[in-house]
Amino acid sequence: MPHLIINYSGNLDAIVDMPALCRDAADAMLAVRDEAGRQVFPTGGTRVLAYPAPHFALADGGAAGRAAGAGKTGIRGSDPGEYAFMYANLRMARGRSAASQKASGEAVVSAIRKHLDPLMATRHIGLTVQVDEGPEVFDLKHSTIHPLFKKA
Amino acid sequence: MPHLIINYSGNLDAIVDMPALCRDAADAMLAVRDEAGRQVFPTGGTRVLAYPAPHFALADGGAAGRAAGAGKTGIRGSDPGEYAFMYANLRMARGRSAASQKASGEAVVSAIRKHLDPLMATRHIGLTVQVDEGPEVFDLKHSTIHPLFKKA
Amino acid sequence: MPHLIINYSGNLDAIVDMPALCRDAADAMLAVRDEAGRQVFPTGGTRVLAYPAPHFALADGGAAGRAAGAGKTGIRGSDPGEYAFMYANLRMARGRSAASQKASGEAVVSAIRKHLDPLMATRHIGLTVQVDEGPEVFDLKHSTIHPLFKKA
Repeated sequence: MPHLIINYSGNLDAIVDMPALCRDAADAMLAVRDEAGRQVFPTGGTRVLAYPAPHFALADGGAAGRAAGAGKTGIRGSDPGEYAFMYANLRMARGRSAASQKASGEAVVSAIRKHLDPLMATRHIGLTVQVDEGPEVFDLKHSTIHPLFKKA
Repeated sequence: MPHLIINYSGNLDAIVDMPALCRDAADAMLAVRDEAGRQVFPTGGTRVLAYPAPHFALADGGAAGRAAGAGKTGIRGSDPGEYAFMYANLRMARGRSAASQKASGEAVVSAIRKHLDPLMATRHIGLTVQVDEGPEVFDLKHSTIHPLFKKA
Repeated sequence: MPHLIINYSGNLDAIVDMPALCRDAADAMLAVRDEAGRQVFPTGGTRVLAYPAPHFALADGGAAGRAAGAGKTGIRGSDPGEYAFMYANLRMARGRSAASQKASGEAVVSAIRKHLDPLMATRHIGLTVQVDEGPEVFDLKHSTIHPLFKKA
């Protein structure tokens, strides 16, 4: 942990540099500090996975976007009725402080908005970021990445 | 919110019109009303994303389907040992009434069964629909779709 | 239920036989027994779906792996700064015993480690397996697979 999983309408692949967005989100997570100044997420355990959905349906399907028209375009073309959506879910281990949870969510929001805000100025795009405390009843980690970051 | 995320065995892409299924599910969600007759899901915040899994394993892998034989076929071919599965998860904001949650789940079930029932008559297909109240500890929405549906 | 959903960095597709891993995980789940010796997961309801993420970012992006060097290679090539990650989430119905939950988690871990351990010996790979008790407020199942496994 933590895992940031990003689900999004696949039309965003045409206009968003997703590998860069993933890296920026991971870097933002690594920079989060708790009240005592400690790194909240262990470097070796910080992961971002992003999934374009090949099939999706959003809002009214486009009618309102087309009716509004003025100043907006589509995601891949000029149709203002083409919407896009991105959902980022950060799953954290239980027991973090509310301040750390909030800081983590805001870090992810900032990293993603850096990429989406310029696009949202002229397109109909929705973004939702949520942080969950996992409800797990079993949890096992096994890794040959973690040892790279163990302090001597 | 809400998000409906549909995970399914990728072999269904050969026989299900997934873009239409997504649209029908979104329309069904938009039609849900609460006890006071109000729309449960805001139009601009209604999203459906669907993901075919390229790799999957279901039940016993096919032996029972082959043994049963009679009247059933496969998903993509004639092998009755080929199964398929669809899982739809609707994540709603907290605080909705039990009646609204139930109506939402049933709306999604109906929309999906319209597409699957004719196929299930001759194929081995499983469908599970669940509605979750999200356990989020952080929640941010930013959208240029929502303003399209704000009442004047 | 249950659903095992496996999310992983897409670079693992080059070195892991994912269809076999999915089948082994399903078989491991089917073999789990509760304290009374009964099968924990119904055969017809046991499903594994696996999703390679086309976009991802892991840990520090590779610097530590490159610095450590000795004895490790990459996932698809010789760069020890290429990491991989697999996350398996098993969602079980509520009300199972803690022992059954633990046995289920361990069964999935064993099935996956059979495939990953040989690779982890020379590569930087992280694995996390979690079992959740679902928080569903609505749950519907409809299936033409289940009847195949109903006892007479």
